[in-house]
Amino acid sequence: MQEADSLEDRMLAIGRRARAAAVTLALAPTDQKNAALTAAARIISSKRDDILRENGGDCVKAEKAGVTGAMLDRLKLDAKRLDAIAGALNDVAALPDPVGRRISEWTRPNGLRIERVRIPIGVIAIIFESRPNVTIDAGALCLKSGNVAILRGGSEAFATSRALHRCFVQGLLEAGLPEECVQLVPTTDRDAVGHILSGLDGAIDLIVPRGGKSLVARVAKEARAPVLGHLEGVCHVYVDAEADPEKAVSIVVNAKMRRTGVCGAAETVLIDKNRLKNLWPALGEALREAGCSIRADSAINEIDAATAPVSEEDWRTEYLGAIIAAGAVDGVEGAMTHIARYGTGHTDSIITENPDTARRFLAQVDSAIVMHNASTQFADGGEFGLGAEIGIATGRLHARGPVGLEELTTYKNIVHGDGQIRP
Amino acid sequence: MQEADSLEDRMLAIGRRARAAAVTLALAPTDQKNAALTAAARIISSKRDDILRENGGDCVKAEKAGVTGAMLDRLKLDAKRLDAIAGALNDVAALPDPVGRRISEWTRPNGLRIERVRIPIGVIAIIFESRPNVTIDAGALCLKSGNVAILRGGSEAFATSRALHRCFVQGLLEAGLPEECVQLVPTTDRDAVGHILSGLDGAIDLIVPRGGKSLVARVAKEARAPVLGHLEGVCHVYVDAEADPEKAVSIVVNAKMRRTGVCGAAETVLIDKNRLKNLWPALGEALREAGCSIRADSAINEIDAATAPVSEEDWRTEYLGAIIAAGAVDGVEGAMTHIARYGTGHTDSIITENPDTARRFLAQVDSAIVMHNASTQFADGGEFGLGAEIGIATGRLHARGPVGLEELTTYKNIVHGDGQIRP
Repeated sequence: MQEADSLEDRMLAIGRRARAAAVTLALAPTDQKNAALTAAARIISSKRDDILRENGGDCVKAEKAGVTGAMLDRLKLDAKRLDAIAGALNDVAALPDPVGRRISEWTRPNGLRIERVRIPIGVIAIIFESRPNVTIDAGALCLKSGNVAILRGGSEAFATSRALHRCFVQGLLEAGLPEECVQLVPTTDRDAVGHILSGLDGAIDLIVPRGGKSLVARVAKEARAPVLGHLEGVCHVYVDAEADPEKAVSIVVNAKMRRTGVCGAAETVLIDKNRLKNLWPALGEALREAGCSIRADSAINEIDAATAPVSEEDWRTEYLGAIIAAGAVDGVEGAMTHIARYGTGHTDSIITENPDTARRFLAQVDSAIVMHNASTQFADGGEFGLGAEIGIATGRLHARGPVGLEELTTYKNIVHGDGQIRP
Repeated sequence: MQEADSLEDRMLAIGRRARAAAVTLALAPTDQKNAALTAAARIISSKRDDILRENGGDCVKAEKAGVTGAMLDRLKLDAKRLDAIAGALNDVAALPDPVGRRISEWTRPNGLRIERVRIPIGVIAIIFESRPNVTIDAGALCLKSGNVAILRGGSEAFATSRALHRCFVQGLLEAGLPEECVQLVPTTDRDAVGHILSGLDGAIDLIVPRGGKSLVARVAKEARAPVLGHLEGVCHVYVDAEADPEKAVSIVVNAKMRRTGVCGAAETVLIDKNRLKNLWPALGEALREAGCSIRADSAINEIDAATAPVSEEDWRTEYLGAIIAAGAVDGVEGAMTHIARYGTGHTDSIITENPDTARRFLAQVDSAIVMHNASTQFADGGEFGLGAEIGIATGRLHARGPVGLEELTTYKNIVHGDGQIRP
């Protein structure tokens, strides 16, 4: 036995083991997958103290390394958060299994019956940053949809992720599934990400990056396997001249301020210039009352001295904080031109009581999610009723918007014949 | 006006024009798209002599360059083939428009109504080799599905493609659509392919390669945009111990010999070793009678002196000719092991009268198309009832198997609210 295997060799071995486990997992019955998930939930609860101890170690190291408040908060677990992590496993167990579901079925004049049936994608690599719960959430979604998961977490949460992963593995073994169904890359070496992006010699069918701008940029540049990614969420709310003023205020404030750190949070509000004087005062005041600072164009600056001027850069910025960019536009056409120029194809909403104007906006704005009279904060797999999500896809292929269990499957074509040959 | 623009500049300009045209085309009504298609069909018929003259020139050049029989045959047009090309345009016009079709719709407890609606992918680049008809077929499928097409044809067919493309552009203009909806790369410079693979600065949403091994390999290596590709079609027919002997013979001969040059042609026949002596003689004789030469493993060589020995390399070879590799396997498990090792995920068929054995094969063989008691030559969009296809996808994401109009679309999520905010 070689002890000095290179990182590349070890990563390729992870890929080979994943490929082998995928063959078994693809055919595993729903009950067996659910048994692994609920067992893992039980084991996490019973190992609570061990996991919190490991997490305490991660937190101390992170503080010493100068990790900031929000990031440290994402890293830190307590009994309540750990219960939520275990609960997520039980929630995914309770969701319907997408594997084997028939998408469509038809019969040809020659008697051939054709079915399209959902099957797992195969091996999915998830690259994420500091939140240790992703180890469980992503692993659970992959397992339930019949996909082997290769998880690469942030180095800050390494000990926590390893402790959680051990519980997951024990759950898999209890259920009689290969432990290689959910693998955690056992090193914090940053080069491991490069190996994953190379596709591990064809072993990875899909890469899901969950992280900030620099990770997304690296993935876009280096990935040699398909990526289901999400870019930034520069989400817009457009308040039309025919908006209900109360809905406008409550939706804009919610879209921006309910939680500012989520990708579905609004970053820009656009208002029809023809009703600006009428709509702005209440909106500006409500935003400030909620704690939001406003960077606005000259039309708004002129009527509201409490707004700062907006820059070209602001329109392109995902603040993920209590700042909003605000501008007056020339009706729905002006709003759509602005969104086409600065949007990131994530989520955009129109507030109007005119159904024709809404229809135009919903048809023409080319984003994964378009909304009418609703808060962009609904851009979420749970809120869509998918049960759970691995992320919001902003690309154009395979899946757009919240990616839940069904979006983690592909399909095969099954042709039932009785001796047919092609003339 | 600059006359010395670099190839890169010219290619990027094609991408920008495509992007701009995509905005208009995505919203074009079905009637307008159909009008362009039928107009192009009419114009091709009226320009028959011009097109055949250009094609004659291409053929003379190709012959001088030493182009071989099959390739020259694919290049050559006559009145009948030109009628078929025009007919394909009318056929696509008659197909239902997938754009705007609702995939699903549901309502959340908070009253939000969510729809998933099909929309075009955007800009699709198709890289193909010598068949000039692809200029029209691929352009028509893209146009009908609301996608702008950037076509890069083989240099041998350049003059023919240009003449056909001119007719298509005239059809677009007659229907009031931007001529940039279907663009032909106006140069035979091989570097143009590299620019397309780079994604033209984000202007290309999808690359569809249609060609041989070397093109597919180059695309896999260089593409910086998503690819809907098809690898080789090493398709298998497995003849089970419980096969109906007559069906087995007729299906294997059809799967191999109906047309040997298509990707759905069978390349390997596997036979249950427990019934080999009973099944082989009629099968071997029928294949030879149909003009097929047989490379077989030792079990078959022993009972049939007219077979040549098969090599390891044969199992991996897409012959696209009148040769078949033949081997005895240990039942359906042995067949599935062989297919997992040597198959290319395209199309594989089982011949058996035992429904349980068929079910196992259909569930476990991980190919885009799996068949029971049917010829692999049915692996075709037309035979599937999709009307027409741009190719057979053997990847795992977005679409698998025949890619028709529907598979050339993606979707958006439309959320209809009445003032909902997220708690």
